[in-house]
Amino acid sequence: MAVEFDHRRISLEGYKEICMSTFLALGMSQKCASEVTDNLLFADLRGTNSHGIARMKQYVTQTAKGFINCKAEPEIVSERGGSLVIDGHNGMGAHISTFAMEKTIEKARQGGLAFCTVRNSSHYGVAAYYSTMAVRAGQIGFAFTNTLPLVAHFGAKKPLTGTNPLTIAVPCEKHPDFVLDMATSVVARGNIVNCAREGKEIPLGWACDKDGYPTTDPKAAEKGFCLPLGADRAYKGSGIALAIDILSGILSGGAPCTEVRPIGTLTPEEYYKGPGICHAFGAIDIEYFMALDEFKARMDRFEDDLKAAPLAPGCEEILMPGEPEYRHYEENLKLGSVEIALENYQEVKDICAKYCPEVDPEAFIVG
Amino acid sequence: MAVEFDHRRISLEGYKEICMSTFLALGMSQKCASEVTDNLLFADLRGTNSHGIARMKQYVTQTAKGFINCKAEPEIVSERGGSLVIDGHNGMGAHISTFAMEKTIEKARQGGLAFCTVRNSSHYGVAAYYSTMAVRAGQIGFAFTNTLPLVAHFGAKKPLTGTNPLTIAVPCEKHPDFVLDMATSVVARGNIVNCAREGKEIPLGWACDKDGYPTTDPKAAEKGFCLPLGADRAYKGSGIALAIDILSGILSGGAPCTEVRPIGTLTPEEYYKGPGICHAFGAIDIEYFMALDEFKARMDRFEDDLKAAPLAPGCEEILMPGEPEYRHYEENLKLGSVEIALENYQEVKDICAKYCPEVDPEAFIVG
Repeated sequence: MAVEFDHRRISLEGYKEICMSTFLALGMSQKCASEVTDNLLFADLRGTNSHGIARMKQYVTQTAKGFINCKAEPEIVSERGGSLVIDGHNGMGAHISTFAMEKTIEKARQGGLAFCTVRNSSHYGVAAYYSTMAVRAGQIGFAFTNTLPLVAHFGAKKPLTGTNPLTIAVPCEKHPDFVLDMATSVVARGNIVNCAREGKEIPLGWACDKDGYPTTDPKAAEKGFCLPLGADRAYKGSGIALAIDILSGILSGGAPCTEVRPIGTLTPEEYYKGPGICHAFGAIDIEYFMALDEFKARMDRFEDDLKAAPLAPGCEEILMPGEPEYRHYEENLKLGSVEIALENYQEVKDICAKYCPEVDPEAFIVG
Repeated sequence: MAVEFDHRRISLEGYKEICMSTFLALGMSQKCASEVTDNLLFADLRGTNSHGIARMKQYVTQTAKGFINCKAEPEIVSERGGSLVIDGHNGMGAHISTFAMEKTIEKARQGGLAFCTVRNSSHYGVAAYYSTMAVRAGQIGFAFTNTLPLVAHFGAKKPLTGTNPLTIAVPCEKHPDFVLDMATSVVARGNIVNCAREGKEIPLGWACDKDGYPTTDPKAAEKGFCLPLGADRAYKGSGIALAIDILSGILSGGAPCTEVRPIGTLTPEEYYKGPGICHAFGAIDIEYFMALDEFKARMDRFEDDLKAAPLAPGCEEILMPGEPEYRHYEENLKLGSVEIALENYQEVKDICAKYCPEVDPEAFIVG
């Protein structure tokens, strides 16, 4: 936990006003602005601050440069049986993806299962946002995405694959929902950037320098690449990352990680091409397998049994995936505010000054 | 690679005769015996010897004791939309699972997707056997299973979860098919047993002793437990393992890993209960998303790009998941024989002497 003076707490109403005003000023529709806002807030409420308002600057810059077309609407290009293919036309990732997950849930309701691939999208925010949409509909939800190339696949020394996160969310009754949401690299690149800024070493195994040698120097790692999950079994993390790219990049007809376009590789004239990021969404409607109540009771018993295991040395409590985030969510909701890193708060102030000067973030600080 | 005198090479015809004669003598139907034989041979052909004829002794013992009912047939207990639930009635895992995957493929052909959960099954052999069945049908295949409890989930010091392997197989044209097949623990327990036998230390990070402390002593590890994949991010490997258990153990209505029954925990009178192992199978029919030829061409280009990356220090070649196994397969098929560890060969000799004395494994040795 960072020290007090590094952060600001902003009221939920203020948070929404900042985001909505900015996004509307950029030209997004009311619906699109509201979905992107909801996605960012979901992340900050859950304490996943790397995917919250910290992304405002990236979204604003990419939209302003025309790298993302924030007016673009998703288009269903094919729909057969349990399958869906959507073209995002370089629109806002969260807007395209909310639409895609809604359609996936609807289709799973009709036939038990659905799988939807999405091409030509952009950064879709926090993945658990989509998988938990399915949970609220009594389903098991899945979401996969490729990302900009940041990770070297097993055996390589050039970052060609993404951090390719996966999320799986499952409803419980008594316990918080089971929500796994993880990058398939050891860490996301942001952790390395943070260590470099704070002058800290990174643990061995997170990353390599540009020549492919393991390093504890975050600055060397920034010039190098992240490693896939798995330490001496990193071919496993790499294999999962590639499988995620196949389900999103290849099966959507869009760009696999080897063809995703970082903005830095394009000339301003080419910005319209967009990043080409691809996603995949899946849903399993539980009632097609058993009564939802029975399923939830089974989940609760399963977690009870797991949590009752004797603790490993140094461990104080056995937590299920999504449980730490759920606790942040409950606490932040009760407080009616979320914590923002000072650096991001400053960015937000600058953004408001430029795009919606009538909104003063200072007015929303509650701590 | 072990040295020559530790192994025997057996002709493929001999391998089949040994397995078929034994399984028929144990009371399996012709179909069941043939499917289990095919599954074991598939593993040995691909060099996955831990799941080949090395499992004969386990299957024979469990069948002879009535822990597995090798005459049991799978029953479809529900079928709606893209969903299937199958009860294995404690039958042979490979027989139950071949049926389940065939049904899954058929259903995916009809609606684009299928997901099948299986309860009351037993050890299903090598997972890639099932996912590659889908590949031969122009589909992406998935298989998941829970196992006996061997791994402590993140934060615990008691093995309550399985090694819970996952497999995803995807067709290519020019390249060998993409076949990911991996335990979600760092290593399978067999690797630790092997080190203990050979008097070798195990790498730190594979396992803990019974008190939950990391150990390099394989004998201490045998009394302890395996660790989930991910080193200092082991909550990720643990999260994937639990998700696999939810899709198989919970969604099938059978036993999650916390309720799977190792034979050692049962009295002889209870053996009929069986292990209760659960599986899940999935298939995505590619033609519902795009033409199969186009998909395969996209896979080939993707792998070309990944393989062209500069090599990490110490790495001689970039391999895709399933490629090392494919090379073993091609080589063994050309030789018309497979390699068996001497220890397993001795077991097989004893099994033949007891169940089918007319079959002499000595006669099938080719090297």
